[in-house]
This record gives sequence, C-alpha cells and structure tokens, in this order.
Amino acid sequence: MARSTNLPVDPARIADVIDGLARLTDPGRPYTRRAFTALFPAGRDFLDDAFRAAGLETRIDAAGNLIGRRPGRVPGRGTIMLGSHSDTVPDGGRYDGIAGVAVALEVARALTDQDIELDHDLEVVDFLAEEVSVFGVSCIGSRGMAGVLPEDWLTRDSGGLTLAQGIRDAGGDPSRIVAEARRDIAAFLELHIEQGPVLETEKLDIGVVTAIAGITRIEIIVEGRADHAGTTPMGARADALAAAARLVTGIEALAKSFSDGPGHFTATVGEFSIEPNAANVVPSRARLLIDARAEERTTMDVFAASVDQLTDQIARETGTVIAPPRRISDNMPTPGDPLLLDVLDAACEAVGAGHRRMASGAGHDTAFMAKVTRAAMIFVPCLGGRSHAPEEFAEIDDIALGAAVLFNAVIQLDEKLIQENV
Amino acid sequence: MARSTNLPVDPARIADVIDGLARLTDPGRPYTRRAFTALFPAGRDFLDDAFRAAGLETRIDAAGNLIGRRPGRVPGRGTIMLGSHSDTVPDGGRYDGIAGVAVALEVARALTDQDIELDHDLEVVDFLAEEVSVFGVSCIGSRGMAGVLPEDWLTRDSGGLTLAQGIRDAGGDPSRIVAEARRDIAAFLELHIEQGPVLETEKLDIGVVTAIAGITRIEIIVEGRADHAGTTPMGARADALAAAARLVTGIEALAKSFSDGPGHFTATVGEFSIEPNAANVVPSRARLLIDARAEERTTMDVFAASVDQLTDQIARETGTVIAPPRRISDNMPTPGDPLLLDVLDAACEAVGAGHRRMASGAGHDTAFMAKVTRAAMIFVPCLGGRSHAPEEFAEIDDIALGAAVLFNAVIQLDEKLIQENV
Repeated sequence: MARSTNLPVDPARIADVIDGLARLTDPGRPYTRRAFTALFPAGRDFLDDAFRAAGLETRIDAAGNLIGRRPGRVPGRGTIMLGSHSDTVPDGGRYDGIAGVAVALEVARALTDQDIELDHDLEVVDFLAEEVSVFGVSCIGSRGMAGVLPEDWLTRDSGGLTLAQGIRDAGGDPSRIVAEARRDIAAFLELHIEQGPVLETEKLDIGVVTAIAGITRIEIIVEGRADHAGTTPMGARADALAAAARLVTGIEALAKSFSDGPGHFTATVGEFSIEPNAANVVPSRARLLIDARAEERTTMDVFAASVDQLTDQIARETGTVIAPPRRISDNMPTPGDPLLLDVLDAACEAVGAGHRRMASGAGHDTAFMAKVTRAAMIFVPCLGGRSHAPEEFAEIDDIALGAAVLFNAVIQLDEKLIQENV
Repeated sequence: MARSTNLPVDPARIADVIDGLARLTDPGRPYTRRAFTALFPAGRDFLDDAFRAAGLETRIDAAGNLIGRRPGRVPGRGTIMLGSHSDTVPDGGRYDGIAGVAVALEVARALTDQDIELDHDLEVVDFLAEEVSVFGVSCIGSRGMAGVLPEDWLTRDSGGLTLAQGIRDAGGDPSRIVAEARRDIAAFLELHIEQGPVLETEKLDIGVVTAIAGITRIEIIVEGRADHAGTTPMGARADALAAAARLVTGIEALAKSFSDGPGHFTATVGEFSIEPNAANVVPSRARLLIDARAEERTTMDVFAASVDQLTDQIARETGTVIAPPRRISDNMPTPGDPLLLDVLDAACEAVGAGHRRMASGAGHDTAFMAKVTRAAMIFVPCLGGRSHAPEEFAEIDDIALGAAVLFNAVIQLDEKLIQENV
C-alpha cells in the first residue's frame, strides 16, 4: 500500500488512545466495555481527559454523547463533526468504533499543532451505545442527536435499569433529547474499520463509503408434519427441515446472484431452528431468519419478491405449508453525501492513499447523522475482515492514513461547505 | 377389509382393557402413564386384576415385568409367550403397546373359554418401560428378560431415583436379572399398532413383520467461519448452514433412493442446530443427526458410505470442514423367525385377514426377545400412521382381528414347535 512518509497526524498518539481504552476492559473477557455497564464510565473519563488535554471544550449532550469542541473563527458558521463510538460488544475488539474516536481526536490535535484555524467549529464525538447494548437496541446516541430516538425505547428495562436512567447515568438528559436535536451541523464524517475483507484483499488503504446498506430481516416459518422417523415411508412425509434446507440453498443462490449485480448485496440465514428437534421424529416446523442488506432499495424489493416466489415453489414441491415471508424489520439504505464523497476521494489522492468506493454492509452512527446533515464515512482495512471479536485488528499505520484523509477532508470542507451552502 | 363375523376372541373385552388403562392417565395430559412415575403402578394393578380374573397366575419377574401364566398340559415343554408393554410416552396414545397386552390377555381368556388346553405353558407379559423413560433408555423389561440389560444402566439416576430402585419399586429384583434370564421360552409373539400408514393406505388388516429395522444414528458436524453477515461478500464465506442445508437435501435424496430399493429403509435428519444462531453472523457451525433405519444391514452400510462421500463432496464445494460422520449408535436389524412368519401368514389366511409382509421401522420388545427365542410380530392398522400422540387411534375390530390371528397362531405353534424343536 502507498504510504506518505510525512503524515499530518501522529500515529503514536492514535495508538495511545486505542491502547488506553483497550486496557479498560473486563480482564477476563477482553475486549468488553459495553455501554451502561460499570466499565463504560472509565472509558468515558479517559476520553474526556484526552479531549481536554487536546484543548477541546467537553460536554455531554442530552443523548449522552461525549463531545469535544474546538471553536471556529466565524461564529454561526456551523459545525464539522467527526467521531464514532467507544462502546464494545461482549468479547469485542479494540478498533470497532474506537479507531474512529481516536482519529477524530487526532485530527483536532493535528490542526491545533499546525496552527490551522477553521471557520467552522470542529466537534469530536463519542456516540453513546452504538452497539446493541443491554437494552437490545443500537445507536442510542446518534439517534438521539438526530432527534429520532423512539420515545418508547426510554422505558426499556434491563435488570431494573431503564434506558432513560442509563442515559442520565451517562450524563445526558432524556427530557431534552428532542429539543436539542442538532440542526447546526454542516457535515459529519466517520472513520471505521471495514469489518470485511475487501480492502485487505485488494491491497487498498481507504474505502470511501457510497452508502450504508439498508437491512431487511425476513422471517419464514415452514410447517410440516411430525411423523415417526422409522415407520413413515420417505414418500409419505411433510418434512419441514427438508423444505427449509431447500429454502436455505435457494436463498444462498439468490444472494450470490444479486451480489453479482450493481451495488452491495448480501443475504444470510443467520437464525435457523426446527421443532421438535428429536432424533426419531420427522421435523414438523422450521423457522429461519434472513438478514438481507442492499445498497439499492430496488434490489431489496426484487430480492424479497424472489424469496416469495421461492417459498411458494418449495411449499408446492415438498407438501409443506409456508406462510408468506414476513419482514420483521426493514430499514432503507443511507447514501453518502455526494459532496463529501468527492472531497474524501480528493483527500485520498492528496495523501497518497489507494482507495475505492464501496458500500457498508454494517450499520453505523453515520446513518442517523445523515438524517440531519451531510454525512459520509471512510473505511480502513482490518485483518481478515474480522470484527466483534478479540482478534479484531487494524494496523496503526492504516488507521493513521485514514486520519490524514479526514484531516485533509476537513480542511477542504471548511472552504467547500461555505460555497455549497450559500 | 375382510372380516370374519365369528371371531374366536371378544372385541368388547379387549376394548375394556384398553379403555380401563386409558382412564389411568394424568387427566391434564392424556395419555400419560410413564414407567417409574406415580400412575404406572395403578395401571399395573389394573392389569394384575385382569390377568387374575382370567385365571392366570401372576408374578413380577426380576426385571419388573408383569407375567400371567396359564400352565400347559406337558410340564417342561416350554413357554409360548405373548405380550407387549403398558407404559406410554408423555402425551402418548391409548394403543401403542397397550393393544398388544390387551390382545395377549384376550388370547389366554379365549383359549380357556373354549376349553382349549395347550401342551406349552402360555404366558402373557407386560414388559416394564419399553418407551424411553425418565432414565433416558428403553426396553428395560425385555432387555432384562433376555439377560442383556447393561449393568451400568442400573445406576442411572433420575431426580434421585436409580433405575435399580425403579425396578425394585415395580416389584423386580435387579440382583437376580442375569441369573433369571429366560431360556425356557419356545416362542414369543407381539401384536402392535403399525405406527405408520402402510396398512391403512393399502386397506390391509395385518402386517406380518419380516424384521425390526436396525437403527443407526450418524452425527455430522460442519465447521464454517463466523463472519459479519453484512460486510462479508457472498463469495468470501464459509457458511456452515449453507453447507448443512445441502447435506440435508442430499441425505433426503439418498434416503428416497434407498427406500425405493429392496427392504425397509428410512433416513431422517431429526436433530439440527447451528451456532452462533445470530441474525447478523454467518453461521460458523452446524450439527445434524441422521436417524437411519434399514431392514438389511448391507443397505445401512452402503447408505453410510454414501453419506461419507456426500460430506466430502459438500465440504469441498463449500469451503467448510466436515469431520467424518460418526455413528453414535448402531443396532443390527432383527429378522422375524421364519417358522413364526409362516405360521402367522397361515393364521391370517385362516381367520380371513388381508395381510402382507413388512418391516418395522420402530424398535420393539420383540427385538430383545429374539435374542433368547423364536420371535415375531404382527401389526394392525392405525389412523393416519399416528402414534406417540393423544390422537393415536386403532379400530377395536382391527385389533380383535389381530387377536384372532395370534389365537390361531398359538394353537398352530403348540403343535409345530414340538415338531421343529425335536
């Protein structure tokens, strides 16, 4: 991979933040620092110290996000915001989210070190609870900042703790979330590890994220008939597992075909179970859950229609009953802002980073920030595409190159946003 | 179906036994009268009364079987034994096993009513715990009577009760099981509901059971790789579920092909599970358990070899790792005794019962009795092939016709066994 030898950012300082947070983990279960658990405030204190040491004014907003502010030269020009999240999943990694927070902080520090003043305010954010937390939902902080946190989530309970109290414990104020939804942000950028193998395989430094894929979850229930496995002739069965197995194979074939088309597409049967699940009984029922992700909404719709056809066909062929597949959740794709994508491409060129455009198959805080501002992301490579696991790894030089891209992009945006937003 | 209007047995008396036992059930969970639970002794008391009312001498043998004896004319000639079991599975039916005990008793009564003396002793048996009981194993009584009950099973524990104590509570004496293994039985016959749809579909009265299929359980573990379902391209996955689904489809195709060949054959994937079973993670592991049943041992061996080939092929095609399939249990088929099969065919003709030869895909006490004597079974039709469920049903006239077949067969055997065993 191409490398500038003189980056405008300091890899060692980025590493210090990442390593410092990595030490704040349940020692028996690295790397675990979940939102709303005892270790999370320690991470927040560490970041607050680091933000203030960099000269940022820190605060917790109503949604519980930690924000470090570097005021701009021109009051009222608006805010360029950079950031990600510091919470982890159980047995998670050291880079998912964390690299994005560390890089955002480094960009602010590097600007100050190099006496670069911006017209815009610059804010560095650590969003609260991007990962699925103890409350079973994700992206609390970014939903809140965008004013789209569902109000009924606040009463969700986890072992006697409500989400509202969890946000208060983090320093937020749920009663002010809607009123303080941000409308002053001129642009938001997030760096994240790819969590996939594409950049590593293609030996590229940066993925400029064209869109965050929409995620649709489709549930299929196959009803067969429980018969004695020894006495029921093969031709006299309605075997729910045999039918569901054909569905899995058919869904995989559809997914491969759609993934060969334009735009990112994946579909995965991640949940699968049968009843009664007894050695000597022909399975009477199977349930499967498809996780489908598409960069283009039309692709998702065509895929879902194809799954409907597939289930009809397999029900007919197998003598089972398959109810129409049910979308149990359904989120639209979030395209990256075109201006930001161009700026990020140019920044990659400027710092000598090998880059490509690609979609994100994973969800990110950026999807919610896009509801209130121009927003885009970049990916940096990670080892073997692994994430949400202790072995998650990204080279500090790759992360620093991403920081340099953001550094360059922020400087470009400080001018371009004014021209565009006139 | 052909029906003799003048059967040598009384359908109403058979119905009385079946109905009487059906009333001895957990009223909230018909029909449940499991061995080693509180209701089981009530069923045994009912049967003991019925056996003695029929003039039989009753006793409990060392393995906990209830036996009613009708002495023969010639001491030392040996015993013709008839019977089955009265225990049920949870939420079981009124006929599985029970019909065979009721019919055995009726044959003894009918002989006495008609003043027919036999040279042989006749014994009617209710085997202990044919079904998988609270101890997780089956055919306790018939294994014990044959002297093949594994000694280490006696220390099996269920909620503080050992199997040894359970047998003692039933009136048996585990310390005497091996010493009292029966060697005096000249022939054993069992009537059972088919538990399959063949006789009903073919409108036949009696299945003369050529063999009790051997049961082989084969476990297959597929190892893939847990990847992020959204970020891992379709072509870069090792999806354990996708591979396992192909296995299920391939195993079903093999089973259908083998079932078209000579002899009974079924194969069923009844247990199936995946890990981590999370919506957004490509499945990393799948486990499936095949229940294969074959009348001919060579068929089973060829099937198992075909499964080995299939797993190799699918592992290669899918990039998963599949260990060699493992036989976790493996029982030989038990052929019916040729003399008894001929006698049963002749008995069917004599009483005007439409009959065919067929294998049993289910296991039965007869398989263990065959280790110590000539043994065979007949099937009577049941509704929709259903068993082990409250809706299990068999017509009392069909059961009575089966009783008439056994009645006729016993009279034939009382002569033929002497000729054969000279």
